[in-house]
This record gives sequence, C-alpha cells and structure tokens, in this order.
Amino acid sequence: MPNPIPLRIAGSGIALPRLRRDNDWFDQRFARPAGWTARHVGIGSRPIASEGETSASLAADAVRQALAAAGWQDDDFEVLISACGVGQQALPCTAALIHRQLGLDHSGIGAFDINASCLSFPVALDMAASALACGRYRRAVIVSSEIASAGLNWDDPDTAPLFGDGAAAVAIEAGDGRSQLLAAHLQTWSAGVEHCRVRAGGTAVRIDDGIEAYRAAARFEMDGAAVYRLAAQKLPGFIAELSTRAGIEPARLGALVPHQASAKALKHIQRVLRLPPGLLVNIIEHYGNQMSASIPTALHLAISDGRIRRGDTIALVGTGAGLSAGGVVLRY
Amino acid sequence: MPNPIPLRIAGSGIALPRLRRDNDWFDQRFARPAGWTARHVGIGSRPIASEGETSASLAADAVRQALAAAGWQDDDFEVLISACGVGQQALPCTAALIHRQLGLDHSGIGAFDINASCLSFPVALDMAASALACGRYRRAVIVSSEIASAGLNWDDPDTAPLFGDGAAAVAIEAGDGRSQLLAAHLQTWSAGVEHCRVRAGGTAVRIDDGIEAYRAAARFEMDGAAVYRLAAQKLPGFIAELSTRAGIEPARLGALVPHQASAKALKHIQRVLRLPPGLLVNIIEHYGNQMSASIPTALHLAISDGRIRRGDTIALVGTGAGLSAGGVVLRY
Repeated sequence: MPNPIPLRIAGSGIALPRLRRDNDWFDQRFARPAGWTARHVGIGSRPIASEGETSASLAADAVRQALAAAGWQDDDFEVLISACGVGQQALPCTAALIHRQLGLDHSGIGAFDINASCLSFPVALDMAASALACGRYRRAVIVSSEIASAGLNWDDPDTAPLFGDGAAAVAIEAGDGRSQLLAAHLQTWSAGVEHCRVRAGGTAVRIDDGIEAYRAAARFEMDGAAVYRLAAQKLPGFIAELSTRAGIEPARLGALVPHQASAKALKHIQRVLRLPPGLLVNIIEHYGNQMSASIPTALHLAISDGRIRRGDTIALVGTGAGLSAGGVVLRY
Repeated sequence: MPNPIPLRIAGSGIALPRLRRDNDWFDQRFARPAGWTARHVGIGSRPIASEGETSASLAADAVRQALAAAGWQDDDFEVLISACGVGQQALPCTAALIHRQLGLDHSGIGAFDINASCLSFPVALDMAASALACGRYRRAVIVSSEIASAGLNWDDPDTAPLFGDGAAAVAIEAGDGRSQLLAAHLQTWSAGVEHCRVRAGGTAVRIDDGIEAYRAAARFEMDGAAVYRLAAQKLPGFIAELSTRAGIEPARLGALVPHQASAKALKHIQRVLRLPPGLLVNIIEHYGNQMSASIPTALHLAISDGRIRRGDTIALVGTGAGLSAGGVVLRY
C-alpha cells in the first residue's frame, strides 16, 4: 500500500424493513422467562423483512437515498456494485436485480457483485477505489442488502435473535484528493470455513438429493465458540498490520465502524483495542447483525448524526464467514 | 480509460470433470433421432461433474496448474478471487471454499468473490488490474469454476445439452509494463434480467414456501430468443465503445476470446464483426457453455496451443445473464 488512493464518499443512505421483531417474540418462542433474549444476545429489537420486501427493493431504496444525498441524478454513475453476503437468487448476480428495481433497464450502467460475506462492503469499497483511481469509472454506487431472516433457523436461540435485515448504500467518486483510502487489508483463514455457513443455495447441495437434507442445509449454521476462538487468535495481527499500513493506532481514529457481529464481539473490540468511550460506532441494540449491511448502515448513521465529519480519519473493520478479517482506513 | 494499466498473466490453468456426456444420451432422453442434439445445439460433447467433483475441487485443480505455469509457490500471492456465476453454497463466499480446498487454511491470503454471471472473469480481471496497479496487491489469482449441471432442467432440450462444467484460473501481477490492460467496458441492460435466471438459491424463493415451487425455481430458465434479440440490439454499440477505448478494431486483434454462449452466438459474432478465419477462439464443440469458466478456459487453451503469444493484442468479450455485455482488451 504505497500511497493513499483518492476516494470520496459523496453520499450514503440506508433502508429498513417496515417491521421489527422484539425480544418478547423470542422469549415466547423459546419458552424462556421475560428478559431472557435481551440478556442472551444483548439486542433490543431487529428489523425483519416481510411481504413485498426483497434484497433488491431494500437495496434500491438505500441507493436512491445515497444518490439524493450526493446530489447525483438517478443514472449519473457508471457502475452499480452489489456487496451482499447472500444474494437474492442464484443467477443473475444481485446487482442486476437491483439495477432493474432502480428502473435502469436500458441505461447500460454496469452491474456486478462483490462478495466477501459480512465484509463485502469494505472489500468492494477498496476494489472500487482502485478502479476509480485508475480512471476505469468516474462514479460508482456500492450497496449491501441482506435479508438474513430468509435463512435463519428459528429454533436456534443462539442465532435467530442475533440478526436483522436491511440495506445501505454509498455513492463514491475519486474526488479532489482530500478524501482518501489510506489503507486496506483483507485476510482469510479458511480453517474456519465451516464455522459459519449456509450449505445450500449453490452447486453443492441439491434439492433432488432429498427434501429434508436440503431444508436443513438451507438454514444458517454457526459454531459461535469456534468463530470467537479463531477470531481472537488472528485479529491482533490483522489490526496491527492495518494500523501500520494506515500509520494510525485504532484509539486515535475519529471513529471506528465495526461489523456488528454481536454485542459480545463489540465489547471485545472495545476492550482489546482500549478505545476511548464513543469512538466505536455500536448500533446493534436496534439493528442486530445485518451481515454485509452492518458496516455501511453504521457508517451512514454516524455520518448522519455528525459523529463522522469531513476530514476525520475513520476505519471500517470486521470479521466475516470464511473466516476473514477485513477493513479499510479512510480520510472521510 | 485514460491510460493502459500494467497487467501480466503469469500463468493459467484449467480443470475438467472426469466424465463427458455425449449427444446420444440427449437424443435418447428427448426421444429424438440420432444426430438431433448435434444439429440442435452444435456441440459434440460436454464435460459433466460427477461424484466428488465440486466447484471448489475443480477450481483448486485449475489454480494449482496456473501457479505451476507461473512458477509461483502455492502460497506466493496475496488474494484469491473467485469469479463464478453460481457459487458452491450461499455462505460463505466461494473463494473461501476454494481457499480451504487449496490447503491455505491458516495462510491469511485474502479471499472474496466477484460475480458478473458469465462475465465474472473479465470483470474480475479488470478490477484486479486496478488493485495491482494501485499497489493493493502484488500478486493475485482469479478462478472461475462452474457446475452448470447442478441447476439444469434435464427435460429442456434447448438448454440441457448446451452447458458444460469446468474451471479455469490465472495467476496475475502488474509485471514490467510490457503486458497491459488496454481497455475495459461493462454494460448492463436489466430489461433482460428475467431472460436467463435461476430464481432459487438466495433470499427470494424459500423452501418453506413449498417444495414443488422451490424445485422449479432451482432450475435454470432461459428465454433464448429474448436474450438473442436484446443482445443483437445492444452489442454493436458495446463493441464500438470497447474498440474506441482500446484503439483497435476487432478484426485486427491477435485473437478474440469470446464467452462460449452457444454455437449460434459464436457464428453471429464471427459474421457481424467480419473476423478473419481463426481469429475467434471457438472451443464450444468439446466444452459447451461453461458459464463464467468459458472465457478463461478458451484463453488458457489458446495460450497453450500457441495461438496467443506474448505481445499479442487480444480481447476477452461476451454477454451474460443480467443482461450484460463486458470485455477487456489486453496486450498479453
């Protein structure tokens, strides 16, 4: 990473489903006393998609908001990058479905997906920054949209209450060089590839192999303890390398926008990195873990409420299924 | 696209399933006279994955071959990009599964997916070229792997005989500047998003909505005539723009490596672009349409047999579900 790459987030936006699911619903479902779910996952309520809300519809709402915030016309960009962990359907890529939802039918604006599980957004931002810097595109839109509720195991009290649905988007351009991508880093330790997964949905598990086997494979499976152990082992080295590349320690950032993996993971980051109060952007109470949409949703909220201002040095970091750790350091 | 971007394909490789399916099998299945399938799809036989062959296993075989051709060690690169149209499972991304298959468990080599349906390979090559040029990575591996046979409708004589399985990979670096990405272009017209699709596999269609509906949605659907009409309408403008950006007409290229969409589509390209005999790399007879693996497989074969040599100006182009058109022009 020899030099900063010019990158300006010109606008951002989010979209949330109409409905929320509160903890009482889970307490009753799991036949636990009132307050059990709140204590167990540390989340108050989470947005859940319902009838008519799709990955593409939420994504399109977020994109429209980001374009409006940037002051760009509806079609004044050259590429739409979907950065989702799980797409809307197997084929074509989710970006094409969002493109259609945005009414870009005959626009010719390019569309493709970047998928790094829950880290899709920072990885897409990093790749797009290089493409903008090389003059491949003048303006780009990145959107992360997840309907985690489509694949949860509602009988699992450890994972079902943890996730929320939603979408978030940014409109980006190279800009005048005052806003920059200072550093990026991505590492994958596939020793953990089975710790966090949905086995169906691709070429491996097929419905003709048996309905019940398929039904089980279509549900999210996580070995939370194994993820936590592997992440705790690998994260210090990852953070040290990202900090060295960026030339700044985490505690000296203007804001650290983490993946909202879990309330426990956020507390762990806060403690291990010895962050001053208020530096970590923690939105999990009302959003849950929105997979790839977590980081850009937290980013948008922190920009909107003035916690992140032009000129601030910020980081977007997290872990994702893979197991991967990834992040970028930006001058906003 | 103001300047060429340094990009050197240091090595390439392919992997094919053990078994092939010949036209007799389809003639019998569809109760047609001998020779019907050969005439109908213009393909002789196609590789089909069987027991034990997965998207990740084929991909890993192709990657090992590309690394050997480049003379790189097994872990002497910083990022593994999966460029598949349909992944192995919904979560995590396919690159993480390939990473594991390669035994990179604790390597920390980054892994993520780029998906532009059948155009995933040229789009990934384009994005990776910018990342290499900006110093984000020193060396990268891109691999496209498809098991189309997992999602075909074996009762449809128009689509079932058309596809083949397989994988292809390249090892890339910025190089010394003699090899370059001269131009790239990607356009999407999502008016055609429903022409070519697999509706299941993501957040939209769920098994709990009904088994038979799910089973139908898990199969590839294509309106071939609609794809052909839209592509024929949009391709001339796309090719003209790519040629302008690259400063070279298609007929003056050293080789044109197209997506192997169908025998008919390849004949159409040959005719419309008035290509001299032998310039178009046509491998469909023995490979079928291998989705995203088609372009890099054809590229590898043309490099291997000496049709593409160092210093040649070549193009990789095609159309894909979306509907998208995409391509890159390279000095190899």
